[in-house]
Amino acid sequence: MKNDVLDDKYFMQMALAEAEDAYSEDEIPVGAVIVSDGKIIAKAHNLTETLKDVTAHAEVLAITAAENALGAKYLPECTIYVTLEPCLMCAAAIAHAHIQRVVFGASDPKKGYSTFLDKFPSKAEIVKGVLAEQSAKILKDFFVNIRS
Amino acid sequence: MKNDVLDDKYFMQMALAEAEDAYSEDEIPVGAVIVSDGKIIAKAHNLTETLKDVTAHAEVLAITAAENALGAKYLPECTIYVTLEPCLMCAAAIAHAHIQRVVFGASDPKKGYSTFLDKFPSKAEIVKGVLAEQSAKILKDFFVNIRS
Repeated sequence: MKNDVLDDKYFMQMALAEAEDAYSEDEIPVGAVIVSDGKIIAKAHNLTETLKDVTAHAEVLAITAAENALGAKYLPECTIYVTLEPCLMCAAAIAHAHIQRVVFGASDPKKGYSTFLDKFPSKAEIVKGVLAEQSAKILKDFFVNIRS
Repeated sequence: MKNDVLDDKYFMQMALAEAEDAYSEDEIPVGAVIVSDGKIIAKAHNLTETLKDVTAHAEVLAITAAENALGAKYLPECTIYVTLEPCLMCAAAIAHAHIQRVVFGASDPKKGYSTFLDKFPSKAEIVKGVLAEQSAKILKDFFVNIRS
């Protein structure tokens, strides 16, 4: 079941709430949720500082949580919403998980997958720019804050 | 401190022992170890089936374990030994961890990072083909076995 544009904004708002949680924990504010059949089955935010683990990006944590929730290794019916364009690691993790739809907010011209690849490394449908301004603003605020 | 060729074979043998553990657990037999200052600080093997988690590749698990061992988010002094060419996800994870040297055994023309990228996504030194035959053989044996 595909989500319409209103759903995309709704679920991205949930991903933004995760990013806000990250912000309040002094983590780079990126959040993600995974939706199956219109329901959120996993949500996560970046925890690289807390866990001292560079692999603890929001998407990787959300994928692991979604797989646990479904007891399944693959997530072919799922959509992942993430506030920032996935990096190469996360794009490949999304591809490994067979997630069918990827919706992201802000683009990441420095570390986003599209800096390295001509196209996403799977046949997933890609929707970009959903709540992009809010997704970028929380990141900008975070970096302004830690520099001051 | 750089390792010489003899060290590379020795540590790849340890990675192969991890791959053998994976084989005995019905996991695709790929193993990895991470070495710092001549000592193994983490070892891991693929656990995607056991954990039902597509992100549980040997390299990702070894990076998380090494970061835990050192209490550090980055592993700039470390070498990772892995029996199979890292996939895109693992190559990017290695890059995120600032690992300085990557030694792998068998090439992976289907899913290896070099299928997608012209070069490794960091400045790490790349050494390929160490114990490549043994690394490839255990994979071949595994797939022959599960198909029969």
